[in-house]
Amino acid sequence: MRHRAIGIFDSGVGGLTVLKEIAHLLPGENLIYLGDTARVPYGTKSVTTVRRYALEAAEFLVAQGVKLLVVACNTASAVALPALRERFQLPVIGVIEPGARRAAESLNRRIGVIGTDGTINSDRYPEAIHTLLPDAQITSVACPLFVPLAEEGWAGHEIARLTAVEYLRPLLSAQIDTLVLGCTHYPLLRNTLEKVLGTGVTMVDSAEETAKSVQQLFYQQGLARPEHGGSRNFFVTDVPTRFKHVGQTFLGADLVQVEQVQID
Amino acid sequence: MRHRAIGIFDSGVGGLTVLKEIAHLLPGENLIYLGDTARVPYGTKSVTTVRRYALEAAEFLVAQGVKLLVVACNTASAVALPALRERFQLPVIGVIEPGARRAAESLNRRIGVIGTDGTINSDRYPEAIHTLLPDAQITSVACPLFVPLAEEGWAGHEIARLTAVEYLRPLLSAQIDTLVLGCTHYPLLRNTLEKVLGTGVTMVDSAEETAKSVQQLFYQQGLARPEHGGSRNFFVTDVPTRFKHVGQTFLGADLVQVEQVQID
Repeated sequence: MRHRAIGIFDSGVGGLTVLKEIAHLLPGENLIYLGDTARVPYGTKSVTTVRRYALEAAEFLVAQGVKLLVVACNTASAVALPALRERFQLPVIGVIEPGARRAAESLNRRIGVIGTDGTINSDRYPEAIHTLLPDAQITSVACPLFVPLAEEGWAGHEIARLTAVEYLRPLLSAQIDTLVLGCTHYPLLRNTLEKVLGTGVTMVDSAEETAKSVQQLFYQQGLARPEHGGSRNFFVTDVPTRFKHVGQTFLGADLVQVEQVQID
Repeated sequence: MRHRAIGIFDSGVGGLTVLKEIAHLLPGENLIYLGDTARVPYGTKSVTTVRRYALEAAEFLVAQGVKLLVVACNTASAVALPALRERFQLPVIGVIEPGARRAAESLNRRIGVIGTDGTINSDRYPEAIHTLLPDAQITSVACPLFVPLAEEGWAGHEIARLTAVEYLRPLLSAQIDTLVLGCTHYPLLRNTLEKVLGTGVTMVDSAEETAKSVQQLFYQQGLARPEHGGSRNFFVTDVPTRFKHVGQTFLGADLVQVEQVQID
């Protein structure tokens, strides 16, 4: 069992940040990544549709014999986790609970959450944070333009800063000390967000927190692969060209071999 | 045959501008619209994937017994028209040729084309324009942020203007007198584009030109429905909530009844 791979999926390239953090904390693990690039994005789509897509993506990874499923997409984690846990007989880790745990360390208990429409509408971050910190004051804002800005390579552009000024106004008024980056694309905008919110606000990157949760689970259950130099396999549902190109920024390394598969 | 409906499809809401123009020129026609909202957008996806989606969308409309297929999506028109004409035994009209015909009326023969990555990479607009105007100087620019800006309701926002300044720089240098709005979302940005390019540039809206092509075809082939007050039926592949909301801006009217269907 310990020698099996970890299956990680996302709607596209964003989840590569989660893969990167897992590879960093658990370098011996074999990792299989699936990006559903033929149907990306999930963030603007309905709960029913995202749930169907998540089940199909998970089906593909489970068929590869993985020992753990990591939902490296905030939208899919927000709406599909119970359905995935019900369908499959293996541990499933999403990005919401790890992020919420870190956010609940807020000192002034004023927490901001930013994400896609799907993630924000689901209200899953506030729910998860309130379970741990019942009197937290949480301000949530959907920021649909952040993903296309990051994918355009404009994360550090003046236009990204002005967009952040527009979106983050309610978070400034709320005097938050902690901001959940509730979308895997948002860490690319970290500098821009700091310019707007100031450096005093703690940014919670779900990718890092999720990798820690995976590590913790593996130590508890003895699931860690005791070797060095795990393999990495990348699959996408559309032609890999764009994924390879945009994915480099997220992975911080070249994506040489990426295979196309059909899962619908 | 004349009493059959016109089938119109797009990846999402943008094609409603085409439907609106057809309804305006041919008010007696029954119109069936399909928005593939579960897989939107097409503009960032590969030729193979967009072709498959377009064939599935057309399959649905043809099964409704339509007399004409209108591909109201620039990306799908750019990459899927030959495949659609080969598969189905009915006239198929895309948005590229009508737009190119209008652009070829340029006086200084310096023409700009803006669109999604898919449309620009296909090179279909330059090809179609060069057929009519061989010595035209054409400058093409992909503008991926325009669609999310329009869908966010920010078409008239300062951020949209700054984005346009960034994208349209090569078109200003090229001293174009005609700009093809090669994506059904772009007419919403017309005022913003005029602020950047000046009012001396003719904007070619494919929606209007495509409706004229449909009208022309119907007069030539005697296909027009000789009644008044045609019906309108709307179908989408995701839950209709967002489509109804965003679609209002494109249609300029309420979208009351929209039905969800599965086509994949």
